[in-house]
Amino acid sequence: MSGRQHADIDSISGLESVGENVQLPTTYVVIKLIPDIQEKALQWLIEKIQGKKTDGGAELIVMLQPKTDPREEYTLHISANMVKLLEVAEDIELIKMDSQGRPVEFTVAQMDDFLIDGKKVDDLITLAERQSIILHELGNIRALTYEKSVPGYPSMKLYENQAVIPFLQNRQLITKMYPLHDEEQLKKMAGYWYLSRLTKQPINAIKDYFGESITLYFAFLEFYTLALIVPAILGLCGTIFTETIPFFSVFNVIWVTLFLELWKRKSNELAYKWGTIGMTSLDEPRPEFRGIMGVDAVTGKVCLQAPRYITYLRMYLVSLPIVIVCMVLAYWLMLFSIWSEDYVKLIEIEEGGMISKDYLIMVPSTVYSIIIPVISAYFKDLATYLTEWENHRTQSQFERHRVTKLVLFEFVNNFLCLFYIAFVLRDVEMLRSQLRTMLIVSQTIYNFQEVFLPLGLNHFHKKSQKINKNTNPETQRQKEKATEACSPLLNIPQLQADDRRIKQAENESRLEEYQDTFDDYLELYIQFGFVFLFSSVYPIAAFWALLNNVLEIRADAFKLCTLYRRSFIRKSKDIGAWQRSFEVLGGLSILTNCGMLYLSPDIRSRFPDYSDMELLMAFMCLEQLLLGVRYLIHIAISDKPEWVRVALARKSYESKQALKFERSQRNKKILYRFRTVQ
Amino acid sequence: MSGRQHADIDSISGLESVGENVQLPTTYVVIKLIPDIQEKALQWLIEKIQGKKTDGGAELIVMLQPKTDPREEYTLHISANMVKLLEVAEDIELIKMDSQGRPVEFTVAQMDDFLIDGKKVDDLITLAERQSIILHELGNIRALTYEKSVPGYPSMKLYENQAVIPFLQNRQLITKMYPLHDEEQLKKMAGYWYLSRLTKQPINAIKDYFGESITLYFAFLEFYTLALIVPAILGLCGTIFTETIPFFSVFNVIWVTLFLELWKRKSNELAYKWGTIGMTSLDEPRPEFRGIMGVDAVTGKVCLQAPRYITYLRMYLVSLPIVIVCMVLAYWLMLFSIWSEDYVKLIEIEEGGMISKDYLIMVPSTVYSIIIPVISAYFKDLATYLTEWENHRTQSQFERHRVTKLVLFEFVNNFLCLFYIAFVLRDVEMLRSQLRTMLIVSQTIYNFQEVFLPLGLNHFHKKSQKINKNTNPETQRQKEKATEACSPLLNIPQLQADDRRIKQAENESRLEEYQDTFDDYLELYIQFGFVFLFSSVYPIAAFWALLNNVLEIRADAFKLCTLYRRSFIRKSKDIGAWQRSFEVLGGLSILTNCGMLYLSPDIRSRFPDYSDMELLMAFMCLEQLLLGVRYLIHIAISDKPEWVRVALARKSYESKQALKFERSQRNKKILYRFRTVQ
Repeated sequence: MSGRQHADIDSISGLESVGENVQLPTTYVVIKLIPDIQEKALQWLIEKIQGKKTDGGAELIVMLQPKTDPREEYTLHISANMVKLLEVAEDIELIKMDSQGRPVEFTVAQMDDFLIDGKKVDDLITLAERQSIILHELGNIRALTYEKSVPGYPSMKLYENQAVIPFLQNRQLITKMYPLHDEEQLKKMAGYWYLSRLTKQPINAIKDYFGESITLYFAFLEFYTLALIVPAILGLCGTIFTETIPFFSVFNVIWVTLFLELWKRKSNELAYKWGTIGMTSLDEPRPEFRGIMGVDAVTGKVCLQAPRYITYLRMYLVSLPIVIVCMVLAYWLMLFSIWSEDYVKLIEIEEGGMISKDYLIMVPSTVYSIIIPVISAYFKDLATYLTEWENHRTQSQFERHRVTKLVLFEFVNNFLCLFYIAFVLRDVEMLRSQLRTMLIVSQTIYNFQEVFLPLGLNHFHKKSQKINKNTNPETQRQKEKATEACSPLLNIPQLQADDRRIKQAENESRLEEYQDTFDDYLELYIQFGFVFLFSSVYPIAAFWALLNNVLEIRADAFKLCTLYRRSFIRKSKDIGAWQRSFEVLGGLSILTNCGMLYLSPDIRSRFPDYSDMELLMAFMCLEQLLLGVRYLIHIAISDKPEWVRVALARKSYESKQALKFERSQRNKKILYRFRTVQ
Repeated sequence: MSGRQHADIDSISGLESVGENVQLPTTYVVIKLIPDIQEKALQWLIEKIQGKKTDGGAELIVMLQPKTDPREEYTLHISANMVKLLEVAEDIELIKMDSQGRPVEFTVAQMDDFLIDGKKVDDLITLAERQSIILHELGNIRALTYEKSVPGYPSMKLYENQAVIPFLQNRQLITKMYPLHDEEQLKKMAGYWYLSRLTKQPINAIKDYFGESITLYFAFLEFYTLALIVPAILGLCGTIFTETIPFFSVFNVIWVTLFLELWKRKSNELAYKWGTIGMTSLDEPRPEFRGIMGVDAVTGKVCLQAPRYITYLRMYLVSLPIVIVCMVLAYWLMLFSIWSEDYVKLIEIEEGGMISKDYLIMVPSTVYSIIIPVISAYFKDLATYLTEWENHRTQSQFERHRVTKLVLFEFVNNFLCLFYIAFVLRDVEMLRSQLRTMLIVSQTIYNFQEVFLPLGLNHFHKKSQKINKNTNPETQRQKEKATEACSPLLNIPQLQADDRRIKQAENESRLEEYQDTFDDYLELYIQFGFVFLFSSVYPIAAFWALLNNVLEIRADAFKLCTLYRRSFIRKSKDIGAWQRSFEVLGGLSILTNCGMLYLSPDIRSRFPDYSDMELLMAFMCLEQLLLGVRYLIHIAISDKPEWVRVALARKSYESKQALKFERSQRNKKILYRFRTVQ
């Protein structure tokens, strides 16, 4: 509590020395608007961003980037001074480590507690946190009662307290909104991360840069990859000693359960360290949350409220039936593709043309594999729309319900054909070849989509830009003209034309946007299914998956660091709906593996004395037994490590004591009176 | 916060007007010691009870009951003054409703908050709570470093900080320790409870009198009875329209899952209202908990500590194998009884003597049904011993692990023979008759054991006591003598010979002790198994169970109110291991009912076109489907009702704010300095 760091406070200024632009503060977030936006609307938006909280504003600093071309988009650079940042940090309960290394909500009043190890006030809030603070404030820009529509766009009606920024994004006046990368930090991180060989990932640095949600993905991927080592070894052994496969597949099933239970512990451990473990559905609503202002039941503050039962009604009465119909349609499509393949085979036998038959047979499955991604993309939009409409309060809830819908659909797309082959056609050879093809093809396609496609696009973009520049000699004059045309209208500071932020903003604007972790998890999910659902049929799958994942960690890291625009950090306390999705797959794998063992001719030849009936009974018993073991593992392993439980209990105890103390302060007199009676 | 109730504080005295004994305070707890206890030991114990906290004492008031006969046990009446009661109430975080009707930890400082609706200080802590406060303090009487053994008993070694009272109970110097009934309250309650016809139970009054643990049992029994109405109606329909049984048994399985999930909600609701919902394994240890003094990781206070891993090692490496061995032995015993019955049947056919055969056949099952309760009783002791030895920290943990062991064993005793008959012998008729017999016999036996046996014993006791009195004319003289002999030795207040508390203490001392809710739950558990495991075979079981339970509620209430000694209240937040036990039974019922449907000749005759194999497949699919439905119900129904979640979140929010506030008070200066810089 000494004054050792207090001197640093003088350096709080919100100004940073950015090249020659000493007087303009750092850009945290860049907003791009369509080139032909009505000036009124632009002016209104800027005033909102600068405006006071009480006027629905965000109290942020806006800087305009000079336009070099009228056809170019308007670009706003958003910043804030340190006081604002600290205020919001306290408001959104940013978690920081205190001097005892425990995660605590940051408050300005106890700033000294967080200024440890020679940290200065400027180091206290990381760049990523500043960006997310800006996002939070932008998201809270609200329409006032008398603002019935966006100025200049009478058709864009606003209701009271509507979140303005998401609305403008939705109506595509705002085309892009993104934080800027920190190239120095990225370079530092790369050495420990995707450029390193076999070291552990720098989880803390990743979390500071990309936020909890993305880091949880990488932590899960690492944990899963490590867990794959055992099934991979067993799979390799299985290819050598084929008679041990039954044992291995039983073991795998137990291993999967163990892995998922242990991951839950690990995840809770991380969530505790990051201070996200206490997130609940009663936390702050997402900006898109619709409702009317009311007193919050938990905090007693006035904020948006919407009855939860309407969300439930929409979920169960509308979304669920729609999702089920889509799943049934996808199932029919799959059946249709298999049937038409059979049909094509029959036709060709009659006609006898060899070459055309080979081609024709491939037509249904080719058409199917082209249609599926298209349908998936449409369904993704549908699921997002439905979940948005359900109006979930928090981002975590929103994501959980969106992911659940998508996973159900993708389950049908990816796994149902395997079930069909395994249990209806009962063709083990076809199943094995299908597994092999799908595993290898899907992994290749994903890696291509993820890394090489954006890499290529990037390259192409850069080239075309260069050509553009070369063919356009008038740029400089136009730039100045545009700058002049703009500045008197909008009375805000402008960046100088040679500010290096302009180049960075433009470069990163051309990068692809990183939507969320869904595609990355989905890739693992599908792989997980291919490896474990039928591990008795194709045990080597685990080995290929392991190899792939070692590369995957690096590919994903590389992709995020260099190929995508930076995204805002998202908090989350766990991997959300994915935990349950993987668990369901784990449970199903018991059913499928026992089923495959029963169907396998290998087993039958080994127990020739047993009738079909007895074998079926035996594998039914095995399945029930494994389900029992799974349940036992589930209840024997506690969700949180002992130390996390103790730490949480301590915190809750301390808060309870503080509450007691506060109350006792209020009623001190009575104690005194009571004692004097004795 | 006005002074409206402050005048009541003057009435705080700890003294109550009990007949003529105005100067002696109310008896809360009675302790009985063996008649021939060493005077030194008695003196030591009394001094301990009166002694200061720092000397390992309890700071309570002790009164001696005059002995009428040297062969009579020593009887101590324990009391405490109001200040002591309030102090401990705060210390053990007694939950009380505050003026807003929310459960809050009681503190003396905010006493005004709890004095609502004209309550006086004397009404604040119920009699049951006072008794449990006394128990808590008695339990915390500890041996000091220099107290190496109980005075007068050199062989009874004590270690430092050993809990004295449980030790003396264990060594049988203390024979009984019980709180006194409140006859007025009991009479009032009876009218609403077991004497009423079909009204709801007075849950709040029961909770105030008997505590959370017993009340949860009654709440569960009521909830279960209500839930039984639907299966009972279906069962009745089933006996009329026999072809609908398959549908009913499938429905039952889903009903059971729903019932258990909804009960969890109900139970959490009650736990919230009672303020027990926050109980964790890190709460205050039970008196029997052994360990060394250390700093508690949660509260930072110095209290007993023992490493948790030793408990785990003992549980998994010692207790678990022992329990499994016992289960296997019980299983063999069951098999042996069935085999010997078969064997007897065979013998008799050869010899041909009709009457002796009928008798002989009954011998194995009779012997078995006599042996089982005996073994069960022994196993109960073993389980209690093992769980004690595992050294669980809290009472809830202790009970959960004890109940788990017992339930596993009782499962084998009660249900395994049904499984054997159903799936090994595959004799549906035998199964049905077995179910009928066991259901009716067990319910009759239980009701007899519970109500009529104690009723008879009580009657017998009273009679014999009367005779004793009449045949002993010297009593009065002896009484006076004994009183004189005693009083100079023990320098403590004595009750007057005509104090009506003496009669009450003696009467209640002769009542049976109510151990815990285990036997009551077990009865329901076994009934639940008989009703749902094979509901497709004997659907009317639900109806008999419903009838029985309507009586059961009243019988159990009557028993607790009149036949048993009052027990100390036990807190609990849920029904502990029973929830899981019922859930496992619910899960198994899916398996058994599908199995029974497959085996039923009825089904076979209805689908003559299907092969055995196809039928088996069909019922396997049905089982998997039902398991899936069960899982969906499980995840769709939240464990806590929305309002409880909101209330908990609000409380946690308030405490967090208080903690923040407390911290900010500490660092106020910095805020000021920081603001001035701006």
